[in-house]
Amino acid sequence: MSIPPVSFSNRSQRTAEAPISYLIALAKANPQLISFAAGLVDPMTLPAEEILVICQKLLKDPPTAREVLQYGTTVGSRTYRQAILDHLCRLEDKPPSAMSLNPDNIVLTTGSQQALYILADILIDPGDIVILEGPSYFVYAGALGSFGARLMTVPMDQDGMVVEEVDKLLHRLELRGLLPRVKAIYCQSYFQNPTGLTLGLSRRSRLVDIARKYSKTHRLLVIEDAAYRELRYEGQDLPSLKSFDPDNRFVISCYTFDKPFAAGLKTGYVILPTDVGSALIEQKGNHDFGSSHFCQAICHRALTEGHYDSHLKTVIDGYRKKRDVMLSAMKKHFPSNPQIGWTYPQGGLYSWVSMPRSMNTSRTGSFFEDCLKAGVLYVPGEYCFQPDEEGSIPQNHLRLCYAVTPTEQIEPGIRKLAEVVRSHLNRV
Amino acid sequence: MSIPPVSFSNRSQRTAEAPISYLIALAKANPQLISFAAGLVDPMTLPAEEILVICQKLLKDPPTAREVLQYGTTVGSRTYRQAILDHLCRLEDKPPSAMSLNPDNIVLTTGSQQALYILADILIDPGDIVILEGPSYFVYAGALGSFGARLMTVPMDQDGMVVEEVDKLLHRLELRGLLPRVKAIYCQSYFQNPTGLTLGLSRRSRLVDIARKYSKTHRLLVIEDAAYRELRYEGQDLPSLKSFDPDNRFVISCYTFDKPFAAGLKTGYVILPTDVGSALIEQKGNHDFGSSHFCQAICHRALTEGHYDSHLKTVIDGYRKKRDVMLSAMKKHFPSNPQIGWTYPQGGLYSWVSMPRSMNTSRTGSFFEDCLKAGVLYVPGEYCFQPDEEGSIPQNHLRLCYAVTPTEQIEPGIRKLAEVVRSHLNRV
Repeated sequence: MSIPPVSFSNRSQRTAEAPISYLIALAKANPQLISFAAGLVDPMTLPAEEILVICQKLLKDPPTAREVLQYGTTVGSRTYRQAILDHLCRLEDKPPSAMSLNPDNIVLTTGSQQALYILADILIDPGDIVILEGPSYFVYAGALGSFGARLMTVPMDQDGMVVEEVDKLLHRLELRGLLPRVKAIYCQSYFQNPTGLTLGLSRRSRLVDIARKYSKTHRLLVIEDAAYRELRYEGQDLPSLKSFDPDNRFVISCYTFDKPFAAGLKTGYVILPTDVGSALIEQKGNHDFGSSHFCQAICHRALTEGHYDSHLKTVIDGYRKKRDVMLSAMKKHFPSNPQIGWTYPQGGLYSWVSMPRSMNTSRTGSFFEDCLKAGVLYVPGEYCFQPDEEGSIPQNHLRLCYAVTPTEQIEPGIRKLAEVVRSHLNRV
Repeated sequence: MSIPPVSFSNRSQRTAEAPISYLIALAKANPQLISFAAGLVDPMTLPAEEILVICQKLLKDPPTAREVLQYGTTVGSRTYRQAILDHLCRLEDKPPSAMSLNPDNIVLTTGSQQALYILADILIDPGDIVILEGPSYFVYAGALGSFGARLMTVPMDQDGMVVEEVDKLLHRLELRGLLPRVKAIYCQSYFQNPTGLTLGLSRRSRLVDIARKYSKTHRLLVIEDAAYRELRYEGQDLPSLKSFDPDNRFVISCYTFDKPFAAGLKTGYVILPTDVGSALIEQKGNHDFGSSHFCQAICHRALTEGHYDSHLKTVIDGYRKKRDVMLSAMKKHFPSNPQIGWTYPQGGLYSWVSMPRSMNTSRTGSFFEDCLKAGVLYVPGEYCFQPDEEGSIPQNHLRLCYAVTPTEQIEPGIRKLAEVVRSHLNRV
């Protein structure tokens, strides 16, 4: 008897396998490949000793052990959230009252990815519009797409998202009667994935003003993804988009302990307006009734007992060196050509490389194949764009992550990549 | 300037605060209340020492530490999933081939709740039908409702879900042309929440046969929630619904380490057909890119190094005693009345109490109020039912959880409850 197929939901049918999965599988199957693809964290910087000390403290005291091994609440412990708020206020150098924040405006999540996902879940119906940078974080673009969102992009320059283009786009959408469908502007405000670029200071207050200006029939929200904020290797920290929202009405900020501390704990948090927070907590109650309480307790101790700050210094030193090795290697090995360029990230995990438009870096192209043969892997830039009105996508970029590759492999990897670039330049 | 409201998605608008949240808040605000409401685990049985030993092993060895503190994959480590499959095969006393299972048919999740939620996510469009027991697990009913599912219930007796009623219901739905909308049958096959009842052996193969029989235009799936399976205090384990699905086509089984081991680790797993697994992993990639790898590694070690089995014995002994105290107290204190009865759970965390139909145990009724005044809290049975065709819901039941309440408070709590019962019986 033949067995009929499963009838999946519309949303499942809109969900594609994340393109990165293919690349991860490639890297796994070919361990000799030098991979600049995966956006993981550097395993050599993981805080094993610190977490061991914390686990011992948590588990050797019976009342504490009983608390941290029990279920937490969906929102997460208020004490942890207070510690996070204190941490945020230190970063902003502002009291919580200046942003109208209290611990109940913070929700703990499974990494920042879950916060981003549930925000889409509570905001997006099919056909709703989200504005984002082009290029942008492809995993979130995929998630938004699974909700049937229409993704509209604005360009970036060296100061990140060109926010005046957001204003113009919203104006055009308003003229077309589409403003009621615009739910959010998504912006990675620090060391963006994939470009490594940071939103300039003056653009920050301006972006929040734009959201306020177009909040006519409903509130237009800014989703600030600040996952990489604390991984700054030079220069001064900038105030977040959130800090320009004194009444806590327009900006939602997503953070994570994964990148600056320990990815295996998968603990993130989101800071958000009261009404959005209530909806997010209710939805998270359906999703999982709360993330791992034990992991949250570890992060809490790390924050309040100094492990987080001291470990962050180690992480930053490690990544800064790797970034410098990659930037020097690109300068040394990439052909000198006015059409070849790359970003200089002041933090985060990525540099974004642009090739001549004639060169096709897409996964199905010969450049990608030749890189594989040469033994080096990258993320094709095409994944990071949305099709324009003609349906076309730039195919001449590469996302390179310097964080996971062992330091001694970075220059050899860039050299291999440069050889492929050179051979393809000659063909053009 | 007035600030307009947020425009939430349809799904968010279908999501209500979980009724249990109100009860948890009540219990928290009144610590002197004896609460039989929360379905947590007994904090006194949490495996602090075992987890400390495991953390030390994981974190003192640098390569292991680097692995477990790094991101895992979305599906979870294959080695852990192999250990889970071995464990399942021991429970079933069958080789994996007898169920056509391999480790890739297992996905690790944030508790079993996340597995249940993502299953709804990939299966349910608004108007789709799910068949479940009446009464059933109210949190999942709420989650299904947020997807716009139509919930249709069949009655239970001492052997759990009356599966012949499922057959009849499907037959009626087929006659009405609604079969294409029926996506799944949800069944808690062991010590059901809220009744504590277990699906009888002969009904197990029969339920899978019914799903097969009505898989005409599409495959009708059985979602088996086996969260409480290993918390058996007497009698023999029964083969799971999954074990009656030799080709791994119709049954999805959800398990958790939360209840039998450590709730704070929030680690569950789901065993499922290959095609459903692929869709679930893709969707979980959007949700969170994988649950905490560290918590998964702890559960893995607990399984393979004997901590899980030995700890489970402790948990079972503890819960059995508490159950016995509650059952004896009910026998001793509840008025002898043919209309008052309660289930005898052979495992799990709950007993289900039925009162005369004239007595209203709902949250807004005077019985609930009088219990609060007397200092005892329960879950009103009304939360566990779906409205019938006339829109009415039975209001004469209580869910009592014996797991969390300290042993010495169980009898006093039941005595208080019995006094309220008696006073309300006199009023009737």
